[in-house]
Amino acid sequence: MKLSILFGGASFEHEISIVSAITLKEKLQGFDLNFIFCDSDHTFYLIDASAMKATTFSKGNHKKMPLLTLSNGGFVQKSMFSSVEHKNVVLNLIHGADGEDGTIAALLDFYNIKYIGPRTDASVFSYDKRYTKYFCEARGIKTLKYETQHTNEHKNLSLEYPIIVKPASLGSSIGVSIVKEESELDYALDTAFEYDSNVLIEPFMEGVKEYNLAGFYADGAFHFSIVEEPQKEEFLDFEKKYMDFSRVEQVLKADISDELRVKLEATFEKVYTGMFEGALIRCDFFVINNHVYLNEINPIPGSMANYLFQDFKSSIELLSLSLPIKQKPKVTYDYIHSISSAKGK
Amino acid sequence: MKLSILFGGASFEHEISIVSAITLKEKLQGFDLNFIFCDSDHTFYLIDASAMKATTFSKGNHKKMPLLTLSNGGFVQKSMFSSVEHKNVVLNLIHGADGEDGTIAALLDFYNIKYIGPRTDASVFSYDKRYTKYFCEARGIKTLKYETQHTNEHKNLSLEYPIIVKPASLGSSIGVSIVKEESELDYALDTAFEYDSNVLIEPFMEGVKEYNLAGFYADGAFHFSIVEEPQKEEFLDFEKKYMDFSRVEQVLKADISDELRVKLEATFEKVYTGMFEGALIRCDFFVINNHVYLNEINPIPGSMANYLFQDFKSSIELLSLSLPIKQKPKVTYDYIHSISSAKGK
Repeated sequence: MKLSILFGGASFEHEISIVSAITLKEKLQGFDLNFIFCDSDHTFYLIDASAMKATTFSKGNHKKMPLLTLSNGGFVQKSMFSSVEHKNVVLNLIHGADGEDGTIAALLDFYNIKYIGPRTDASVFSYDKRYTKYFCEARGIKTLKYETQHTNEHKNLSLEYPIIVKPASLGSSIGVSIVKEESELDYALDTAFEYDSNVLIEPFMEGVKEYNLAGFYADGAFHFSIVEEPQKEEFLDFEKKYMDFSRVEQVLKADISDELRVKLEATFEKVYTGMFEGALIRCDFFVINNHVYLNEINPIPGSMANYLFQDFKSSIELLSLSLPIKQKPKVTYDYIHSISSAKGK
Repeated sequence: MKLSILFGGASFEHEISIVSAITLKEKLQGFDLNFIFCDSDHTFYLIDASAMKATTFSKGNHKKMPLLTLSNGGFVQKSMFSSVEHKNVVLNLIHGADGEDGTIAALLDFYNIKYIGPRTDASVFSYDKRYTKYFCEARGIKTLKYETQHTNEHKNLSLEYPIIVKPASLGSSIGVSIVKEESELDYALDTAFEYDSNVLIEPFMEGVKEYNLAGFYADGAFHFSIVEEPQKEEFLDFEKKYMDFSRVEQVLKADISDELRVKLEATFEKVYTGMFEGALIRCDFFVINNHVYLNEINPIPGSMANYLFQDFKSSIELLSLSLPIKQKPKVTYDYIHSISSAKGK
């Protein structure tokens, strides 16, 4: 099948997106792939598959490749005498800002381009961790209690240590700190405020079970990955996460009961339904006293969580055939016509 | 001052947006105005001020005017041998879909264009009335209790009649019905489902006081309009609302105590702060037993609620000088460089 991988973006996760795209090139062998790079200045380039390596971008060689612009129905490559339209389904693989904050979704919807990825609403609710809390609260999905802090505020915390301090709207563990006592708090806040003017603070749960589950809705049913119990470290720092985005090896199923698997899948459905249609997402859960808590929604997981799917290529193909299309209301001028004829014009 | 009025859009409120734009042409006399029309197929046209009348659009005469495309920093008008850039601040006056759902905000942010209007997050939270409920709940802002219904659901309602049935994501009273008894419910739901697959149902409060207040944050302070007590009818239907969008006459202040005015302004600030910066919004409130309830947020009110401001032109000018700019993270290739040099490449 034909697919355009859109990656890059003006984001702290720009490099990670490049790694993800290179990984998908390998995992989707046999597909007719196009690579569309969004540079940090928001210029689009068509990248030849043979040039899909990290140094192409770090050395700036992508700037010699054909420019693309957005146009109704697809990306257009213009030359002196002709223009070529690229109308493939797009896989939005821009992690972080642009890709996960709703911008790219809005652009692709506006230009009538079909895409795999979260829509604008879903992006807004998953990108900012405060809004994920609002959403879960409204839908009756359990999450850890939390507090927020704005860069201009100096509130006293009511949570007990240890706590985890996160920029409200970044993924990939960037700017995240575990704070074991009050003396470490200011440094952790400063670190998080480098990335976002809003910070989310939660209890840091030691020794809690964590499970990741990816999936999507297509062709009238949910399609789930295996459940993974991620390797335990305090948390993945940027470097480890970066390596994580190039994962291709299928992982082992977590050793959990059917009952727990069903519970995790049911919580996933509660998160996904009526919000994430069109996207393959990964939900990261905590299990505490047999209750499932949502930790994080990754609406564009690193390398699309390919390593969790038994048949990743078929999954992408299936999803690409079930993409929602933004309804465009039919515009009429009935009202203006009726006013004008009443006026005799 | 220079300003581009962006109007139209693929929306049920397309005609209303045209009326709003024509009204602003009159209200902003003396400004150096540009008019940018977004057609229902998402083509942009530069409309000459002299052609700013409703029949230009209903007769399709706008299609003879210069095409514009989005480009980094502004709208570009291309001709055979040259291209002209329009880099004014944009006033987003597209009501309903496109304009108020976050799409136009994302486009303007992506292309680095300064604009008056709600950002993407703020649009998502105000466009879908369910999400407004989530938001108010999280911020401790009182709203009426509610239920939702999806087109595929057949839930029994627990609210008592009379109730008001609204499409989740439309403004201007389109598809809204007051339902006095159960026998009228199915028809009201069908009507609302014509416009949205999700419906919001609230108690219909007879004889409750309603107040509208518009305002914005600029130059370090809030700037409020007068408080209006809207004319009482059951509710404004589309036709009355349409006329409402062409209002230019300054209205009279509602006869309320200073104490109530302060309460309304305080609730407005609670809604606005950290979410609606860059926009001039109108909040519609109910007052019940001396408590302020938010009914609706209009992030792009009809004709910008000009009739509520004592000096509308200065308000727009002041706001245009205080617009937030989406921070673009600096992209580096530090990680790729360090990996490459470790590999000796």
